[in-house]
Amino acid sequence: MPMTREEIDELLAEPHLCHFATIDADGRPRVRPLWYLWREGEFWFTTRREVRHTGRDLTSAPHVAVSVASETEPYRAVIAHGEPEVLPAEPAVLAAIANRYGDGGEDWAATAATQHDRVVMRMRPRTILSWNYAREETEGRKRTDL
Amino acid sequence: MPMTREEIDELLAEPHLCHFATIDADGRPRVRPLWYLWREGEFWFTTRREVRHTGRDLTSAPHVAVSVASETEPYRAVIAHGEPEVLPAEPAVLAAIANRYGDGGEDWAATAATQHDRVVMRMRPRTILSWNYAREETEGRKRTDL
Repeated sequence: MPMTREEIDELLAEPHLCHFATIDADGRPRVRPLWYLWREGEFWFTTRREVRHTGRDLTSAPHVAVSVASETEPYRAVIAHGEPEVLPAEPAVLAAIANRYGDGGEDWAATAATQHDRVVMRMRPRTILSWNYAREETEGRKRTDL
Repeated sequence: MPMTREEIDELLAEPHLCHFATIDADGRPRVRPLWYLWREGEFWFTTRREVRHTGRDLTSAPHVAVSVASETEPYRAVIAHGEPEVLPAEPAVLAAIANRYGDGGEDWAATAATQHDRVVMRMRPRTILSWNYAREETEGRKRTDL
């Protein structure tokens, strides 16, 4: 069974990392763990356009795939595809992302906002796949209509 | 600082999921959580060549990127790139992978081995990036020479 929208919201509200996949300039896959914030059906990320491969990749190939999974019971996963919109790095958004991952998000955001190539990305998924799994590997993945 | 080879072995011995990124037939990124086994400098995975998108993608684009991260302290991550070698699904290898993720790996492997398109993938990474991170987002990623 796919997860309901409420179950997806619940998983994505937990302070997991996402694994953010892009295509590099040679057409090969790249993936990295990244902080995220899920709010009202949209992902928010932050990266740097120059210093980070992830940020540079988006210039040549806008498509992104994102994977989030719980490694403890109940085992659940969400995969989303979309094209992030790149926006200026508002300190309030940076802090909202960083605060999911520990104390001191405002301090981190204040520093990050001074980085000249720091950006925020907003992504409303084109598709979301979700599933519950345990001793079933990742069988049973299903599309959830949003 | 990058992790030492011993620290990489230690992280990858923990029962994390990996997030396995490929390129789909349209040249877009795909990523999904996947079981893995790390042994003597090689990743072992299992998938299905027909039923799973991941397996099908490898037919057209052999390059893979893999991301593993701890979501609890000490925060560490490893990213590996390579081209998996696709091998027949030996039950002993399937069980060794599945047993990392709970009891009953042999039973799971016995069933999985009967699936006509079940394969094992062995990947010796071409590159490995690793880092420790905490309130530093993912700054400080470094290449580890193997």
